[in-house]
Amino acid sequence: MKITAAEIYKTIELIRCQAPVVHNITNYVVMNSTANALLAIGASPVMAHAEEEVEEMVNIASALVINIGTLSERWIFSMFKAAHHARKKGIPVILDPVGAGATAYRTKTARELINNEPPAIIRGNASEIMALYDDKSKTKGVDSAASSDAAIDVAQKLSETHKCVICISGATDYIVGKEKIVKIKNGHQLMSRVTGLGCTASALCGAFAAVEKLPFVATVKAMAVMGIAGEMAASVAVGPGSLQTNFLDCLYCLSENDISQRLKIED
Amino acid sequence: MKITAAEIYKTIELIRCQAPVVHNITNYVVMNSTANALLAIGASPVMAHAEEEVEEMVNIASALVINIGTLSERWIFSMFKAAHHARKKGIPVILDPVGAGATAYRTKTARELINNEPPAIIRGNASEIMALYDDKSKTKGVDSAASSDAAIDVAQKLSETHKCVICISGATDYIVGKEKIVKIKNGHQLMSRVTGLGCTASALCGAFAAVEKLPFVATVKAMAVMGIAGEMAASVAVGPGSLQTNFLDCLYCLSENDISQRLKIED
Amino acid sequence: MKITAAEIYKTIELIRCQAPVVHNITNYVVMNSTANALLAIGASPVMAHAEEEVEEMVNIASALVINIGTLSERWIFSMFKAAHHARKKGIPVILDPVGAGATAYRTKTARELINNEPPAIIRGNASEIMALYDDKSKTKGVDSAASSDAAIDVAQKLSETHKCVICISGATDYIVGKEKIVKIKNGHQLMSRVTGLGCTASALCGAFAAVEKLPFVATVKAMAVMGIAGEMAASVAVGPGSLQTNFLDCLYCLSENDISQRLKIED
Repeated sequence: MKITAAEIYKTIELIRCQAPVVHNITNYVVMNSTANALLAIGASPVMAHAEEEVEEMVNIASALVINIGTLSERWIFSMFKAAHHARKKGIPVILDPVGAGATAYRTKTARELINNEPPAIIRGNASEIMALYDDKSKTKGVDSAASSDAAIDVAQKLSETHKCVICISGATDYIVGKEKIVKIKNGHQLMSRVTGLGCTASALCGAFAAVEKLPFVATVKAMAVMGIAGEMAASVAVGPGSLQTNFLDCLYCLSENDISQRLKIED
Repeated sequence: MKITAAEIYKTIELIRCQAPVVHNITNYVVMNSTANALLAIGASPVMAHAEEEVEEMVNIASALVINIGTLSERWIFSMFKAAHHARKKGIPVILDPVGAGATAYRTKTARELINNEPPAIIRGNASEIMALYDDKSKTKGVDSAASSDAAIDVAQKLSETHKCVICISGATDYIVGKEKIVKIKNGHQLMSRVTGLGCTASALCGAFAAVEKLPFVATVKAMAVMGIAGEMAASVAVGPGSLQTNFLDCLYCLSENDISQRLKIED
Repeated sequence: MKITAAEIYKTIELIRCQAPVVHNITNYVVMNSTANALLAIGASPVMAHAEEEVEEMVNIASALVINIGTLSERWIFSMFKAAHHARKKGIPVILDPVGAGATAYRTKTARELINNEPPAIIRGNASEIMALYDDKSKTKGVDSAASSDAAIDVAQKLSETHKCVICISGATDYIVGKEKIVKIKNGHQLMSRVTGLGCTASALCGAFAAVEKLPFVATVKAMAVMGIAGEMAASVAVGPGSLQTNFLDCLYCLSENDISQRLKIED
């Protein structure tokens, strides 16, 4: 499955043109920065977490992004309610299992969401993806050095069981779907020094899935754009402060040429 | 009613000199960016939402800004409590009805706040203002293409009924008061790609209302400053990331000359 | 007690090398900016406030930072739970009593935390520190002009009673411990126009205390780094927007030479 720079750029143009509403139930830390990234790429972010309104907000959205980064009881209730409604309406759900494996509360919540309301796309780092698989011997908690190989194995099982796309992000991003894996080698190490860029990647998956029918293709495109904008931003950054500012500027200005010059994608 | 650059600048000097406390009960997305905008213009932001302390916080504030962008039950309770107390103490209340019309929960909350604790100033986009008027046939939900004409009509009715100033913000801002309308044509399109600049405008209305007796005049001045700082920031921005950084710098550095060179105000 | 630039830099290297997990239960306004500051200095921030998971999160942390900037009932419960657990495990607790003195709710919460779960380090401005001492005649509320002398007196009493380090931050920072006071005269006035830099200072105290055994030494080093990065950032800033961006860049790039050239420390 070859995805080209031209195809990626076409999807960006669709986002810019349609400005799809992306409904986020996300953590307090990244609400501002993910909303800004969604606006920069051309989407229309909304944040709403009250059980009284999540279904109605899903109704006007083209994607729902659920991020468990700062959980509490009522928020979990709303996440389930919104995910259930989105699935019923055929709206793609993206799950970011932030910190799965770090505490039982997060691991349990992520697994229950996946089991009861399987999302279209799950994006996490290797440790988080490992923690999603209900097999104690394979769960390494917050071990950020979890090997990609082991995580890919888990991702393939999850993908098969729940019919969803799994993205393991890191120096190389692995997008795992039914009998296929795509690797993306874009991005820059400095990105790990800015809070919430993983969450931003998940939000961008939402923006791409909002206008692109195939979740696997949407994820590949979103992760490529994330990595390319990140490395462009890093190339002129002094440190993580300017990286973040540049990143939003790059997302906003991204051209087809930027993508074709930098895209590092492998089947 | 002619408001001049010199008068606007005098009010900025008052804010810088008095550093009025502006109490915000606002949404999670914009807490950081609105606090920064208030600090940049010279005010002292405080954020407090617990029912146990909102009245006491109102006591030390010179304005109260209520923003319904990420509602939930307890926060609504505190909004009413704080607004009631502020009105009793004669402290101006500014309401930002974020997403009114998008969900029944937001529309209902905004309308009940207006009916029970009429604020001094309401600022929203055309769709949000339309949604505040209790006439189903006129409510278009999140239709961002709501015509300004229709919104002005609603604003005049709201203003009359509740004795408050309504600001409909957009490419042209309309400030609607008793038998008067002022238009401001400052601002820049790129501002719509930064999250929460509408919320920032409402917070600035709070800072200006804190030192300026007439809510109508405070709103006109705040919106002019918002637009001018925004277009100055946009003139040297690469994209929405640098716009946001520049915007705070421009608010902080704004001179009388900047205002007089750029002010586009019409009765 | 003389602390040198070389010693400060060695601790930064330890943080960069060990990337200690700093668990924050903090306010909504600063979650993003303090997470970014912790990442920039080399630490690993986590934010978690649910009573279901705070103990488990403390288990993987090397410091716990509690900040009362946007309190509510459930969060207070979690703060006590986390602090209790951290103390039992020997993990240093840093308290930022934001707004103590402004409302009874904040003053009471801060005092109860100190009395029941005495932290290793408390950092606040002069008014906040004054408000922590249970003597009505000395509490001036939010009076930001509280004299440093009076605050130092209170800090010494608090330090003695609770065996903790008190940092009174301001134009001059006073770090008060058992029979010793260190003054730091770094920093820049523009820093007060960026929201949450006080909270960031407290978070940095957490990062330093995570790798440095003596809380007093950790606090001195953290406050020196804070002030130095702040004045470096201010020296090339146009206003508070660029200051914030530069600040993160400076924290990330800070060299031993930067510190030795700027350090203004006095016994």
